[in-house]
Amino acid sequence: MTTASLRPARANDDSYRERALKVIPNGMYGHLSTARFTDDYPQFFARGEGAKVWDVDGREFIDLMCTFGPILLGHAHPEVDAAHNETAARGDVLNGPGPEMVELAELLVDQVPHSDWVMFAKNGTDATGLALTTARAASGRSKVLMARNSYHGIDAWALPSEAPGTTVEDHLNTVWFDYNDLDSVEAAVAQAGEGTIAAIVCTPHRHDVYTDQVPAEREFAQGVREICDRVGAALILDDVRCGLRIDLRGSWERHGVRPDLSAWSKSLANGYALAVLHGAEPYREAAGKIVATGSFWLAGAPMAAAIKTIEILKATDGITTMETQGTRLQDGLREQAAAHGFEVSVSGPPSMPLLLFADDAPDFAKGLAWSGFCAHHGVYLHPVHNWFLSTAHDAATIDAALERTDVAFADLKRSL
Amino acid sequence: MTTASLRPARANDDSYRERALKVIPNGMYGHLSTARFTDDYPQFFARGEGAKVWDVDGREFIDLMCTFGPILLGHAHPEVDAAHNETAARGDVLNGPGPEMVELAELLVDQVPHSDWVMFAKNGTDATGLALTTARAASGRSKVLMARNSYHGIDAWALPSEAPGTTVEDHLNTVWFDYNDLDSVEAAVAQAGEGTIAAIVCTPHRHDVYTDQVPAEREFAQGVREICDRVGAALILDDVRCGLRIDLRGSWERHGVRPDLSAWSKSLANGYALAVLHGAEPYREAAGKIVATGSFWLAGAPMAAAIKTIEILKATDGITTMETQGTRLQDGLREQAAAHGFEVSVSGPPSMPLLLFADDAPDFAKGLAWSGFCAHHGVYLHPVHNWFLSTAHDAATIDAALERTDVAFADLKRSL
Repeated sequence: MTTASLRPARANDDSYRERALKVIPNGMYGHLSTARFTDDYPQFFARGEGAKVWDVDGREFIDLMCTFGPILLGHAHPEVDAAHNETAARGDVLNGPGPEMVELAELLVDQVPHSDWVMFAKNGTDATGLALTTARAASGRSKVLMARNSYHGIDAWALPSEAPGTTVEDHLNTVWFDYNDLDSVEAAVAQAGEGTIAAIVCTPHRHDVYTDQVPAEREFAQGVREICDRVGAALILDDVRCGLRIDLRGSWERHGVRPDLSAWSKSLANGYALAVLHGAEPYREAAGKIVATGSFWLAGAPMAAAIKTIEILKATDGITTMETQGTRLQDGLREQAAAHGFEVSVSGPPSMPLLLFADDAPDFAKGLAWSGFCAHHGVYLHPVHNWFLSTAHDAATIDAALERTDVAFADLKRSL
Repeated sequence: MTTASLRPARANDDSYRERALKVIPNGMYGHLSTARFTDDYPQFFARGEGAKVWDVDGREFIDLMCTFGPILLGHAHPEVDAAHNETAARGDVLNGPGPEMVELAELLVDQVPHSDWVMFAKNGTDATGLALTTARAASGRSKVLMARNSYHGIDAWALPSEAPGTTVEDHLNTVWFDYNDLDSVEAAVAQAGEGTIAAIVCTPHRHDVYTDQVPAEREFAQGVREICDRVGAALILDDVRCGLRIDLRGSWERHGVRPDLSAWSKSLANGYALAVLHGAEPYREAAGKIVATGSFWLAGAPMAAAIKTIEILKATDGITTMETQGTRLQDGLREQAAAHGFEVSVSGPPSMPLLLFADDAPDFAKGLAWSGFCAHHGVYLHPVHNWFLSTAHDAATIDAALERTDVAFADLKRSL
């Protein structure tokens, strides 16, 4: 799955890779691993600022991944960092939470119409897991319905049944349906048995890796809501990836659909570790009964960073900025691909683009090659996972990125 | 379970509690909730420095909980915070890890004899969960043996089967034994079936809530190691709570026992969110296959804080400091209790004391009352969960704490 390398000598990155290989399984793990990419991708980074990142060899990239979502206002945002550090200097993790917890909880409950209460944690997986546990505690039921290939974190219930280290028993309560296919949801309900279903979990749109992003059909979102009401299951919206990027009120508010529980994380605190479970009033009692705790969950500094992040996002109408510049990027990519004679799909909400080449699965050879050329020319994006913009991506940044992606299309054409 | 309050008007804490009740289930959740304590306990804190914390009404406490473990060198440690902030200002979460990840991994693998590789995460639960998933991926087996009432995080397999929101299926693979009882481990092995056991999980000593802490018998630790070798199961040491407090090399090294996998978290970065899974060489391949990822897991700033924390701990021989002052505290408490005519047990390693009154279960009325008097007099400790010291707890701090606990014993005597 690798393509020819254009990469110059990259002494520091090579050295860190070599050292990492000794003390980390495969030298890297998880979604930040570049093992399958061309050698034009660095694995190790030294710094970020605004819409740019620099690798450990000093090479600059326009960053179209934003750390897979956490960066919302640009890297190393001085006001957010100041808010974080001011709280940390007073005391970040204490024997109880600080005022920030109450202030952030009030801000979020006020902002999100379906939310009557919140619980804070660290990982997106914490939030989706707390949502399911709350739904189960509320209903006394066990089954959970989720869309095939959707990602809801690394809890075993949400992983494919063949995932190494998960057990048969881990998947006994998960039933799969197809996104945007209400008939398949009904079939899953029938398979599980109406009275056994604790929750149905959905992402705001289909943003599975390796495939085009697809908006939720309004009929689907509303239909899932109706099915949940009919069978007495909780509707859980997994807004971990999209929260604060699509709609401050929650990503299905625009469909007129309010979940019972929603999980948010990534971009909440512009990079600082924070996750939040939102819940509607009927689920408050159950949420108060589950075992929900973590050593760092009530740390005040990331909460102060979140308050500042949301303040700035609102004050600057950051979502509109990302929509405008994301549309500019997506339109530009479509035009470039066509001009170079490539059939591509550019999908996703404006601030979460993904470009896939037609007929490129299963090896994604064109995508891997093109993304490698992009990296070579100083644009960091992903061949098969959706990208992320931030409010620091202004028109000039997008234009500069497009200049480089255009060269990458030319490189790809020449290489074929 | 509450006792009469000595508490003066505490306007800010009351106000935050009232506000929190609206937007957080029960107004608070998890191990930092003071709901069952006397009203002398504040719920909300404003700051910490060294061995002291201040609540939102400005009242000062000598802190004998250290945030339930994360604080190892004292609150708001300037050198650790500077290391964190310096990295954060360059870029905390980027599209790949920074040099800190490699440096910290090398430092840890060098420090911990059973460790050939590490993986970083955020919660203690992440680390114990990754350990079990790795053990399962390595063996293709499902069962896990753990001591009854031990705490290994909030993953369902580790929770009591009656925990709200967990399912029958969640517990099908967990088999319980009794800590320090090899016969009960053998019985659990027989119950599970030798060829089905992926892992046996132990805490370094018995540090279950509500009960005296008990050291691991050397024969028990070595016996569990032998059983794991015999049945081909991984020995997982859950060093989340004890790591860096007992022995830099891992808490069972002194028993001559090396686990295959160990989970560390709490005190690694003096409060910043970080967890680590240590593994021996035979488990590297399996660890490289599991789905292990989180949005903030490779953040560089907490890793920089961890490097600085460990450097300072080593340079100052911090473990010896905590042992000396912890012994001073434990001896002092025993003497005071006896002088006041109370039968108590003071248990645990020097830096992790716990004082329980004899015959105080199940309501712990004496413990709750005494801890409330301690809080009233400005010492923050816990009635039923082990406490934690830091290297900032010097002789003068311990003596000042003991002066106050002595008054609390007198108060308790008078109140009965």
